Amino acid sequence: MIKKLSHIGIAVKDLDKAIEFYQSLGLTLESIEEVESQKIKVAFFPVGTECRLELLCPTSEDSPVAKFIEKKGEGIQHIALAVDDLPAELQRADEMGIQLIDKAPRPGAHGADIAFLHPKSTGGVLLELCKEKEHH
Amino acid sequence: MIKKLSHIGIAVKDLDKAIEFYQSLGLTLESIEEVESQKIKVAFFPVGTECRLELLCPTSEDSPVAKFIEKKGEGIQHIALAVDDLPAELQRADEMGIQLIDKAPRPGAHGADIAFLHPKSTGGVLLELCKEKEHH
Repeated sequence: MIKKLSHIGIAVKDLDKAIEFYQSLGLTLESIEEVESQKIKVAFFPVGTECRLELLCPTSEDSPVAKFIEKKGEGIQHIALAVDDLPAELQRADEMGIQLIDKAPRPGAHGADIAFLHPKSTGGVLLELCKEKEHH
Repeated sequence: MIKKLSHIGIAVKDLDKAIEFYQSLGLTLESIEEVESQKIKVAFFPVGTECRLELLCPTSEDSPVAKFIEKKGEGIQHIALAVDDLPAELQRADEMGIQLIDKAPRPGAHGADIAFLHPKSTGGVLLELCKEKEHH
């Protein structure tokens, strides 16, 4: 089951400049985290109570986000939907014939488990399903 | 002040097919509306309690969404942040040197007033500010 929108991933070249822009709009920077598996730094901006903007800045030229920027320029890279049971949702998507980038959940930012669906199967949208870390 | 994420606009070529895809993910179609000023049909999918996915399908070749698809293909077209006072936020953005596509609010889908900021000023993101219709 999809619970809510988790976040929108925005590819940026210059993290400081992008942070400054979203702060100038009135949003508040929550934290910055390095995600080594993706070779990116991520800046988190909560919006409302349910979701966040995530500014994704490559730390290496072979980061998937660097490749995205090279191909399409800076801008919105993906959206992430929070689900209750990620392995079950991935299995369901697979059975429906949706092409999976990640066949099994892998660790993402903010302690979440994540998996991407291929844009070929989703009408051009890089769609992440994620199981957010539960706060106790 | 930014209150929350209002919606994510997704450009699609085939509205029925896109609706079927998001329904297959487990989302529920709320309504479909034609926005004549933009020459689009819009299908609304609530996600969580705060925001919606909006599938945007051109009804004419000279729709801004048709031009987007021609240039970039199907996919995420814009994100919309809900603000409390749209004219004040536009004036503030203008004074900060952000390039406005709409200098004054105009009517959008769902009874909202909307205005777009130019991607040149926002790091490649087509950013909409909107004042959602209040439900009494």
